[in-house]
Amino acid sequence: MSETFHGWAVKEKGKPLEKFEFDPGELLPGQVQVKVESCGICHSDISMIDNDWGNTSYPLIPGHEIIGTVEKIGQEAKGISIGDRVGLGWFAGSCLSCQPCLSGRQQLCERSEQMIVGRHGGFADRVRANWEWAVKLPDSLDPASAGPLFCGGITVFAPIADLGIKPTDRVGVIGIGGLGHLALQFLNAWGCEVTAFSSNKSKTDEAKRLGAHHVVDSTNSAELEKIAGTLDFILVTANVTLDWDAFIAALGPDGRLHFVGAVLEPVPVAAFSLIGARKSVSGSPLGSPATVAKMLDFCARHKIAPVTETFAMDDVNNALDHLRAGKARHRIILKR
Amino acid sequence: MSETFHGWAVKEKGKPLEKFEFDPGELLPGQVQVKVESCGICHSDISMIDNDWGNTSYPLIPGHEIIGTVEKIGQEAKGISIGDRVGLGWFAGSCLSCQPCLSGRQQLCERSEQMIVGRHGGFADRVRANWEWAVKLPDSLDPASAGPLFCGGITVFAPIADLGIKPTDRVGVIGIGGLGHLALQFLNAWGCEVTAFSSNKSKTDEAKRLGAHHVVDSTNSAELEKIAGTLDFILVTANVTLDWDAFIAALGPDGRLHFVGAVLEPVPVAAFSLIGARKSVSGSPLGSPATVAKMLDFCARHKIAPVTETFAMDDVNNALDHLRAGKARHRIILKR
Repeated sequence: MSETFHGWAVKEKGKPLEKFEFDPGELLPGQVQVKVESCGICHSDISMIDNDWGNTSYPLIPGHEIIGTVEKIGQEAKGISIGDRVGLGWFAGSCLSCQPCLSGRQQLCERSEQMIVGRHGGFADRVRANWEWAVKLPDSLDPASAGPLFCGGITVFAPIADLGIKPTDRVGVIGIGGLGHLALQFLNAWGCEVTAFSSNKSKTDEAKRLGAHHVVDSTNSAELEKIAGTLDFILVTANVTLDWDAFIAALGPDGRLHFVGAVLEPVPVAAFSLIGARKSVSGSPLGSPATVAKMLDFCARHKIAPVTETFAMDDVNNALDHLRAGKARHRIILKR
Repeated sequence: MSETFHGWAVKEKGKPLEKFEFDPGELLPGQVQVKVESCGICHSDISMIDNDWGNTSYPLIPGHEIIGTVEKIGQEAKGISIGDRVGLGWFAGSCLSCQPCLSGRQQLCERSEQMIVGRHGGFADRVRANWEWAVKLPDSLDPASAGPLFCGGITVFAPIADLGIKPTDRVGVIGIGGLGHLALQFLNAWGCEVTAFSSNKSKTDEAKRLGAHHVVDSTNSAELEKIAGTLDFILVTANVTLDWDAFIAALGPDGRLHFVGAVLEPVPVAAFSLIGARKSVSGSPLGSPATVAKMLDFCARHKIAPVTETFAMDDVNNALDHLRAGKARHRIILKR
């Protein structure tokens, strides 16, 4: 039986999104079909709309921070039932058979399917994904604001959970935006001493409300020098070029500078600056379904939620303009 | 009672070493005095002789890969007795009270004393150091070749031991010299699948004898491309500039490019190249006294030893010329 999904698609680079419908074909055995309640907007949606990464197929329905209810299940889908309220993020499938998948690192899958790469995402009434990436929402989590946890949230939660960050650590977060405002909440609840780095003085009070114990101007050499040698972990959520030497110097013994924001210019790393105090520079993409589930429980227990602004899905073009203008505080959610 | 130590010192930058004697003053309470049997020559000795790092005080007696016998002990020295055969390396003291020291990372001590920085080293009849850095040699280890383990050896052993390298890992070693030829032996005995990277085809057979299962030309793009995504750990012992992007690409998921050779030019690291497969770039200096002791036991059990050439200590200037000419295979030892 043929079906029609209705969404908002960009049909050509530079054009606004337009109403678009398509036939999704048969539900694959491993897939679930989700009726969309809401979908967050991520900077990666804009990158895909604009074909910044050269891998966009037009027309494209963007959207990969999806909350909805399962309405169909393929024969091979596991651990999920019709009527479950779930979230979906950047990944829409993984092979479950490569070494990273078999070792619980499905976000490093060698044959992963990505929600809006060569397929359609969540700015729509319905969306599909492989069962393992449809993660159930705890009942006590507010579904209206949970969408951004599935991309922005897991991107910053996974390194905290996976890289051995300890509650005794002194940590920093560069950038207080869609990712950073969640990282501050996570790290505060994790028990860490948290420093927020921002070049925007107007964000100081908010950074503190979100969990920062200290706020340091990320572009002020003197302020950075004052904290030299003190931090165990610095999470880079911004995608701007900063004085990376100064941030490496801000790390103490065994400190780590970790990128989740895709800084485009190469970061010049002096081997000497790493060797003396055994420092490292690293990066990571999102997290596994198991880590997504842990994050959701952690958010529910600690009352952590994205700070959101809501637009009607039919108002998607205004919402995108708002984000492009740098005005979103901090994550926009499109509600159907 | 005044004493005189006799050694070989460089008195001025660019000059050959000359016989030199000095009064070491009173033995400090935490120190031990070691009668030198032999001392290895490390590239760092040449850097200090030439004041490459700007921290040389002339006159300087170099030498920091020392084997000898304890002949005097300060009142506060612990765990060591007169007559013990010990080794000494780059460090001659640590505060034992800062957080890195108290957590067993004395090589990251904030107030460390270094054997040949502002003090005299092992190209001499006697040398002193704080007790914690004088590590006893297992009886079954050949003292004649053990000196280089205390700097070159521990520099490559410590990351293997401390960073969670597993016997199931596929690892690479860049450079087959003083450090690399030990790293190949360690990693083979550690149980890993070992790839040696060298630009010198004439070293292929030797690399295999030392424990490499594969040898790849470190300057050949096509060869590097063939192993893309396959390695868990690459140890950089060379201090040359290579195509670092190609080596980061050679890493698989969660792979690490680790520097112990002090590459002077900054390594340009694209955040993107780390994020996708959760890779890291890191560095480390030497190892703690506890790790030195573990290394010595490991060497004794696995019959691992530096490959050495021996010169008489009085022939130190010829030995240095031999090393400067790149002819040492692989570590020179000065014998008294």
